[in-house]
Amino acid sequence: MTDVLPAPSQTSAELAAAFGRLCEAQPMLIGMALAGDAIPGMRPDLVLHAGPPITWEGMTSAMRAAVCGGLVFEGRCATVEEAEALAGSGTISFAPAHDHQAAGAMAGIITASMPVFIVEEHISGLRAYVTINEGLGKALRFGANGPEVTERLRWIRDEFYPLISRALELAGPMDLKQAIAEALRRGDEVHNRNKAATSQFFRDIALALVATGAPHEKLEKALRFIAGNDHFFLSLSIAHAKAVSLYVEALGKGDIVTVMAGNGVEVGIRVASLGKRWFTAPASVANVKFFDGHSEDEATPTMGDSYITESIGLGAFALAAAPAISSFIGGTVEELIARSERMRDITVGEHSYFRIPALGYRGVPSGIDVRKVVSTGIQPLINTGIASRIPGVGQIGAGVQQIPMGCFVAAQAELDRIG
Amino acid sequence: MTDVLPAPSQTSAELAAAFGRLCEAQPMLIGMALAGDAIPGMRPDLVLHAGPPITWEGMTSAMRAAVCGGLVFEGRCATVEEAEALAGSGTISFAPAHDHQAAGAMAGIITASMPVFIVEEHISGLRAYVTINEGLGKALRFGANGPEVTERLRWIRDEFYPLISRALELAGPMDLKQAIAEALRRGDEVHNRNKAATSQFFRDIALALVATGAPHEKLEKALRFIAGNDHFFLSLSIAHAKAVSLYVEALGKGDIVTVMAGNGVEVGIRVASLGKRWFTAPASVANVKFFDGHSEDEATPTMGDSYITESIGLGAFALAAAPAISSFIGGTVEELIARSERMRDITVGEHSYFRIPALGYRGVPSGIDVRKVVSTGIQPLINTGIASRIPGVGQIGAGVQQIPMGCFVAAQAELDRIG
Repeated sequence: MTDVLPAPSQTSAELAAAFGRLCEAQPMLIGMALAGDAIPGMRPDLVLHAGPPITWEGMTSAMRAAVCGGLVFEGRCATVEEAEALAGSGTISFAPAHDHQAAGAMAGIITASMPVFIVEEHISGLRAYVTINEGLGKALRFGANGPEVTERLRWIRDEFYPLISRALELAGPMDLKQAIAEALRRGDEVHNRNKAATSQFFRDIALALVATGAPHEKLEKALRFIAGNDHFFLSLSIAHAKAVSLYVEALGKGDIVTVMAGNGVEVGIRVASLGKRWFTAPASVANVKFFDGHSEDEATPTMGDSYITESIGLGAFALAAAPAISSFIGGTVEELIARSERMRDITVGEHSYFRIPALGYRGVPSGIDVRKVVSTGIQPLINTGIASRIPGVGQIGAGVQQIPMGCFVAAQAELDRIG
Repeated sequence: MTDVLPAPSQTSAELAAAFGRLCEAQPMLIGMALAGDAIPGMRPDLVLHAGPPITWEGMTSAMRAAVCGGLVFEGRCATVEEAEALAGSGTISFAPAHDHQAAGAMAGIITASMPVFIVEEHISGLRAYVTINEGLGKALRFGANGPEVTERLRWIRDEFYPLISRALELAGPMDLKQAIAEALRRGDEVHNRNKAATSQFFRDIALALVATGAPHEKLEKALRFIAGNDHFFLSLSIAHAKAVSLYVEALGKGDIVTVMAGNGVEVGIRVASLGKRWFTAPASVANVKFFDGHSEDEATPTMGDSYITESIGLGAFALAAAPAISSFIGGTVEELIARSERMRDITVGEHSYFRIPALGYRGVPSGIDVRKVVSTGIQPLINTGIASRIPGVGQIGAGVQQIPMGCFVAAQAELDRIG
């Protein structure tokens, strides 16, 4: 399966304990709230973003555009130009979503009045937060910020969210772990392919939505919004992975990766035994299938918090579950599966619950071992969408990329230092 | 892939034309009606059943029980005992559903006031009919016929059917070919595993159901009925295959199988070049995984019209698309896929539209060539459920069985005779 001998496995009780938490975590979707009411430390003047810390000045154009779109949505400014001035004025603070138990796809912008799904890890009670996926095309997470985007975000907040929130109350907690396990049996890797997972979620939420007794036209609009976006479940997959990650991180032991995320300039990782510290390296663009009319020159380097799904063994680590993704991200099915299977050389073990029928029900490779990455030289794969550098354009490609080795070298240096 | 050399392919234009029709057929779900209003030749005193022709006296206990349940449902009798007397009185006629452009799972009983889905092959306008799947457990198709079954059938006719029928009018024709192709990408083989296909159908019908403006409690009950039955789509898969089969059969040429079906006593096939004639052999039980507490002694031999799905390359011919089915029907994933792939030796070619991502997007083996079956000695596989011989018990197992060689030997003898 590989031509590189894996490094000797770490067998410490700490590593096993961290990996055990990764497998045993039980993330449940328990409801929704506005970000400002739910996310710890969230406030009107704070904007959360994807990846490791970055200043307004340092941000890519796509992330800046998304920040501005968020401020316009909040009603803090009337225009994008005013928002740029406000964002750079010092009034607004910026912080990684990951520092606030949250995570977001692509630019990952979260402002105070955005509604968020709340996913609670059942054993620990730890909670993760994520915004609603807006759909493909012009979306804030890709740096689009025109009137269409603002209008959709406001509809989500003012109409969609109250309805879904009420439906979730009626439905009761939803078991995301079970939903993801079933989606793996239905051809999703639950990062860049969420078709089956979205279809399942649609079924569950539709029953609850009808039970709310809301007017038919409101029900229909809400249902069409979900049905029209095959990536709707991505938000829940991210929040699920973040909840797992929080549970592993809370152990405070084990040299396994808890977070991988990019801000478009740098990619950063976190390690269970090293807490909330970021270990970063420059972000890049590689191995991407660009949509017609777009090229690498226009691409924003690795950006987004959704690689938290790979941190727990999904996404690019589970490509064998989702052969049909090859038509979306490029490459032959055989190549993609072979690359994905190589992740077994840098992980602690096979997930006990997330299994792939086509591989004779082997578990997905889970728990990225920092020391194995460094010793084998095999970089973790991530499935990713690519945002244009040009504000307002949105997604221009997708593919399988790698987390830079520099992140792992930096983390291992710290592990060696504290010995 | 096999240790038996395949027979030389027939290359006649007729065979190619029949196979071409099999691949190009475009079955669309266009609506619903009551069987007596829609199925050609249907009348109150006619009961349609699965498989080749059989008399009341010759039927298995499971099929008799289903016939009686049908007559009670129709209000022709108050009790099952009265229904037995009526069924044997000579007043009631029996005919294969396949002789009336219809097909049914397991016992396959269709009576005049049962609602049916109408699936039209778009190029030819030929129509196929199938009843609504009642769900697992005590269901008429498995020979259950108590008050619970009657009540459910009447709710289906009186409440569910009018609502679904109205929703289908609003939705417009649904492309079943596209739906099945997508389900193959989501882990279904669309015979014994219909989870993804049902989930997709739920999404489409839910949007249309809400658009009917029907009262919320009726909507919710209808949606829960579909959501609660992972096999709901099976009816549509059967009708889809029957519509394809009618289109191939209408060509009147090509030695490929158009129908494979069992009545619990005999299994019969039809061949495109031989029209509507049945070629039969005794039915048997083999290779079945029985549910706990049940055994072969209690099993009804091969019964049902659903093997029409295998006739077009789905079901047991497409196991590589549905590795997760192994937990339902037994056997390792590798064994099941290897057996399924062997069907390439007895088929005309690869389906041009139904493709399996995990096999590098190869088409499913389609168009069973009678002469290849006989010359290779490889019997077509079928995925099947097993009904108890004991009336009222229902399903007691599932597995991969084979269509008896005798059917193909008889058909080839006729082909040789007419030369």
